[in-house]
Amino acid sequence: MGGDEGVRVMMAGVALARHRHEGLRFTLFGDEARIKAALDNHPNLRAASEVVHASDVVSAGDKPSVAIRKKASSMSMAIAAVKAGEAGAAVSSGNTGALMAMAKLALRTMPGIDRPALAALLPTLGDNDVVMLDLGANTECDARNLVQFAVMGAAYARIAFDLERPRVRIMNIGTEDMKGTEEIRDAAAILRAATSLPLSFDGFTEGDKIGRGEADVIVSDGFSGNVALKTAEGTARFVTDLLRTAFTSSIRSKIGFLISKPAMHLLKHHLDPNNHNGAVFLGLNGVVVKSHGSANDKGVANAVHVAARLLEEDITRRIAADMAGVSALSGVASKQELAAK
Amino acid sequence: MGGDEGVRVMMAGVALARHRHEGLRFTLFGDEARIKAALDNHPNLRAASEVVHASDVVSAGDKPSVAIRKKASSMSMAIAAVKAGEAGAAVSSGNTGALMAMAKLALRTMPGIDRPALAALLPTLGDNDVVMLDLGANTECDARNLVQFAVMGAAYARIAFDLERPRVRIMNIGTEDMKGTEEIRDAAAILRAATSLPLSFDGFTEGDKIGRGEADVIVSDGFSGNVALKTAEGTARFVTDLLRTAFTSSIRSKIGFLISKPAMHLLKHHLDPNNHNGAVFLGLNGVVVKSHGSANDKGVANAVHVAARLLEEDITRRIAADMAGVSALSGVASKQELAAK
Repeated sequence: MGGDEGVRVMMAGVALARHRHEGLRFTLFGDEARIKAALDNHPNLRAASEVVHASDVVSAGDKPSVAIRKKASSMSMAIAAVKAGEAGAAVSSGNTGALMAMAKLALRTMPGIDRPALAALLPTLGDNDVVMLDLGANTECDARNLVQFAVMGAAYARIAFDLERPRVRIMNIGTEDMKGTEEIRDAAAILRAATSLPLSFDGFTEGDKIGRGEADVIVSDGFSGNVALKTAEGTARFVTDLLRTAFTSSIRSKIGFLISKPAMHLLKHHLDPNNHNGAVFLGLNGVVVKSHGSANDKGVANAVHVAARLLEEDITRRIAADMAGVSALSGVASKQELAAK
Repeated sequence: MGGDEGVRVMMAGVALARHRHEGLRFTLFGDEARIKAALDNHPNLRAASEVVHASDVVSAGDKPSVAIRKKASSMSMAIAAVKAGEAGAAVSSGNTGALMAMAKLALRTMPGIDRPALAALLPTLGDNDVVMLDLGANTECDARNLVQFAVMGAAYARIAFDLERPRVRIMNIGTEDMKGTEEIRDAAAILRAATSLPLSFDGFTEGDKIGRGEADVIVSDGFSGNVALKTAEGTARFVTDLLRTAFTSSIRSKIGFLISKPAMHLLKHHLDPNNHNGAVFLGLNGVVVKSHGSANDKGVANAVHVAARLLEEDITRRIAADMAGVSALSGVASKQELAAK
């Protein structure tokens, strides 16, 4: 959906992803006429796609309770296709709250998982990105939720970064054991005891260390995770805005800018949110990826790539297997918690 | 304290502040010999100072419960001087948790305030900085706490930015009324009803809008406030690190950097945390300011300036007067809350 321009960008992005994943086939839900018009520019994609008309539209302002009744919307139909086994994964750039509500209702939460979480990759100065979750699906979280997020995030990191035992940390306001809420300290105690899980729990981290490359997964409740994500985005934009102002402040600095252009391009590439587009709802019986509403074709291609990778590596099965390890250890963990009190 | 170098930087900073606030007098608590040696370079400051030896040291790793027993530490003695009325304000660059615990214990919370909060100024692209609070003093907060933070933050903003009615927003994970926790929504309802307060409550804001200049005060619980502050610091450093890498990636970009140096200096000045050094504990019967442990002389001078301004403008009295307005309105607010449910 999203008007002529929105459909064009979406199709261009899917066409890019099609080049990267030759085997994929696509079902494109939305305004049939607009999609078909946009596909004229992408014969390769057209050959691998089926177009299905969606007569309803979920708008950005729709409350989730209103949106879930729109069964003929593109996001509802895409999720229904995943549920029916006709599609492996759904990718949407629509209203996040609506997408989350529909996905939960239709696909249900996985056995062993109490609540799904929204996860995304963020850039670091290290060898790989970092998986952050939850980014806003759950305003308040207990220790069980946080432990489950750790397991799900680690499963994602193993796929995304090809690691055996991703380094997991919990976001806190200090790194000492006594810092933070009871929920956080309890989750840390459980993870410390669960040594057989395919992850290395390294304790707490703080907001200023997200991009340092010291962790492969950072776990937080959805409120502070959302605040951290948006603050990072806002600050990156703030600094680049200042940089632009500085470079246009004099003739001399404008000349300097022209000479430094390749360097600035490198910076821009690193900070371009399109390179990290595609947030995943982890913990559902099916893969659902949210693409940012303002993503360009490269960004959309990234979101489709994320969905394809999680599907190829069967993330749902991996999480289920890992959660079995947590259940077996929960008796030990509880004793640890009691001992810590 | 903080070794020879720490004392030298602290004294150089206080000397700078002495130039800006001619009338101020200082009592300098710490290692007497080191302080006196450092004062040799600042005869002006020496003439306006008294040195008092502190035989105890609070270290960075001391738990608050251990630190509060160190009565002969510089931070404990400085706070005791405020309590005794011998000093108007205390400034320290020591352990934040210890300083907070000592200040609460000795100075007590103001009438009408349940919990003090840590507030600081952050840079924006607007006309003035923004007051953010709480930055970590209170891990969990209820609606009453958040309302009190709003009143205290507004009192600070009126002094720092010379405004009549600062624009106050609450940090949330969306700007719609239904977003966030119950505590946040209740606090918003109370502030919306309290129209006679000397502030303009403008609803919610999000992490990506902290630096936009759309609010003069941003209120949050101490957990997400701390996450936001540290994420902003970490991201600014991340971007400038990338920038440095980009500029040293080729001969061409190095030349560009040399030419752009004045522009880069402008950027560095804007992002230098020393220009925003000095976090205040608001809500105590006395002014206590925390200077960052890694601040340079300009940073220390800023922290002293913050303390001096709050003292000159009598922030404690202002907050007390404003809180009377909230109490008178609390009946109305409760009805509003009920109506909203």
